[in-house]
Order: sequence, then structure tokens, then C-alpha cells
Amino acid sequence: MGALCRLPGIGRKTAERLALHLARARPEEARALAAAVARVGAEVNTCARCRNLADRDPCAICADPARDSGLLCVVESPADLAAMEAAGAYRGLYFVLSGALSPLDGVGPGQLGLDALTRRAAEGVRELIIATNSTVEGEATADLVAQSLARPGLLISRLGYGMPVGGDLKYIDGLTIARALESRRRREPGGS
Amino acid sequence: MGALCRLPGIGRKTAERLALHLARARPEEARALAAAVARVGAEVNTCARCRNLADRDPCAICADPARDSGLLCVVESPADLAAMEAAGAYRGLYFVLSGALSPLDGVGPGQLGLDALTRRAAEGVRELIIATNSTVEGEATADLVAQSLARPGLLISRLGYGMPVGGDLKYIDGLTIARALESRRRREPGGS
Repeated sequence: MGALCRLPGIGRKTAERLALHLARARPEEARALAAAVARVGAEVNTCARCRNLADRDPCAICADPARDSGLLCVVESPADLAAMEAAGAYRGLYFVLSGALSPLDGVGPGQLGLDALTRRAAEGVRELIIATNSTVEGEATADLVAQSLARPGLLISRLGYGMPVGGDLKYIDGLTIARALESRRRREPGGS
Repeated sequence: MGALCRLPGIGRKTAERLALHLARARPEEARALAAAVARVGAEVNTCARCRNLADRDPCAICADPARDSGLLCVVESPADLAAMEAAGAYRGLYFVLSGALSPLDGVGPGQLGLDALTRRAAEGVRELIIATNSTVEGEATADLVAQSLARPGLLISRLGYGMPVGGDLKYIDGLTIARALESRRRREPGGS
């Protein structure tokens, strides 16, 4: 139960419920879970190219010849990469930073992996899309990446800000409204 | 208590609590509330220019000479207008539609107030900013407004879509990520 308790989002009560379930379950069930957990440690590695979690190197995304290798999307974490992939709108490659700049947590410019990103961006990338989060740390990281990677011939872009899809103006915060206003786009009749 | 119960968001229990509070309160307090409620009906009108709720006509926004009368922002409701104003980023004028297109609720093109908007847009407006919500109804309304108001010399724009400020990629829905990717912007080093 102590081991379960250390998992994120699992407190004493949930750990107790899980432990009792495993104790009552058929032995094969507990063994299967133990084996799966052991496999995570043994088989999950990091792709040397994009630094995403992967079971092989290069990962399935980096190795996919159908993807546009001229586009490189920079995200903060594997979870952000998964969200981009789930959106299904991006057909380029990725680079996963080691989180966002956060001096208080000991993440400074040296810890982000900018050297590896600089090397990676030199391999035939024409556009670098910075997709760090829209938080204070994510913005600071975006600034740093844009400054560090700037070189002639490399287009650096940032995800657009504005209204989330399905959003209702009266429930959206003022900063987002201001950004949406700033980033308004010309609309042709009939077009979107 | 029945009258309180008809207010939006106030159920039986809350109405009971309010009614008991009023019954126990000093008589002046109940009278002051009654007078304030009566004043709403008597004094709140609609501005003939922007169709926002106002206590005079034209309203304080329409009558403000410091605002840019060449910009007209089209919103669905007075609450949306209030959200835009609270954001503090817009210095033009407004036009409030009668909600969004919603055939099931009986709101068709004829009910939105497009005739009044067309007349209003002819009064020295150079840019019409469509700020309807990013819902299905809001988008349909935006299309209709863009189609109906199109004329040479009038720039029609729509609020930008994308990441809300403070947003974390892994918690943002896929459609919004796709829009943010679509509306990405070139980023100069050091700029924002």
C-alpha cells in the first residue's frame, strides 16, 4: 500500500482500495499488473532524436517517412506531445524540452536541452513551431528558445492565442479576449 | 418566495433563505431592495445605436468621443459586451445582436437585427469585428454576418482562435490545438 501511495493522485484511501482489490483478485491478475509495471521500467526509453518516451529509438514518429521533416514542434513534455498528436492536425516532427524554465525548481537555461535542440534544428528544419504552454514559465521558455535558435533561414513561429473553440466570450478571461482581439483575422464572406 | 424562485440560478432552497433573510431584516432594507428592483424596470433601456442595455440613449460608450467610431465590434449579448469592456483592450464601438442564430429556439436571420446592423455599419465604420462566441451557433452567426454585411471598403474580421492565456497544452481540446497551430505567428527573437 505504501508503494501505491507514492503514485501521483493516489492518496491513502485510494491506495487502500487498490491494495484490497489486488489482495482479493485472482493471483494471475496481480502478476499481470506486476509484469506490466516491470516492463515500463525495462522497455520505455527515450527517443534520442525527439526525446519523447518511446519503446524504440528512433520512435515511431521520428521514423515515419510520411511526416514533414522540415517542421519541428517544440513542446515542454511528453504529455503535451500526446495532446498535439491527439489533435491530429500536425504532420511534422517534435522536440521535447525538459519542462519549462523555472529557476525556483532548478530548471534554468542549461537544463532545458537547448544544445540538443540547436543541433536537431540544424538537420534540415525550415520552421520551428514553439508550442510551450501559455503560462508564465512557458512564455519565458518560448522567448529563450526563439532567442537561442534564431538563425537566418529558420522560420520561428508560436502557436496562436485566442478564443478556445466552443468558448463563450462572457466566460473567457480578459487577457485571452485581448489576445483574441489582437490576433483577429480578416474574414471573407463565405470563408471561415 | 415564488417570485424569488423565478430568478435564474435560484432554486427553492436559496429562495427560502433569501425570503427568510428579508423577513428578518430591517424594513428599510427590504424597501431599498424593492426600490432598486423597480428602478431596473423603469430606468434600464436599450441604446438605439448599439442596442446594449443602458440608462440613457445614446449610452455612455456610444457617446464617448474618445472611442474610435471606425471600429464596430459585433457581440451576441450585453454580457459579452461587458466581458469585452472588462478586458480593457478595445477602444471602438459595439453592436449587440439579439443572440445567435438558433432555429430551434426560433432565432432565425430575421430575428438577429441584421437590418439595424447594416444601417449602423454604413455610418463611417471601416472595420467590423465579429466577436460572436466560438460555439456552433456563434460560428453560424459569424458566417451570416460576414455574408450579409460584405461591401467594398468595409473590412470584416473575426476574433482570433487559439490557446487561451494560461493554457496548458495537455488540457486543451484537440480542435483548439488545431486552430492554434493554424493561426501560429512568426516570432522574432526577443519579440512576443
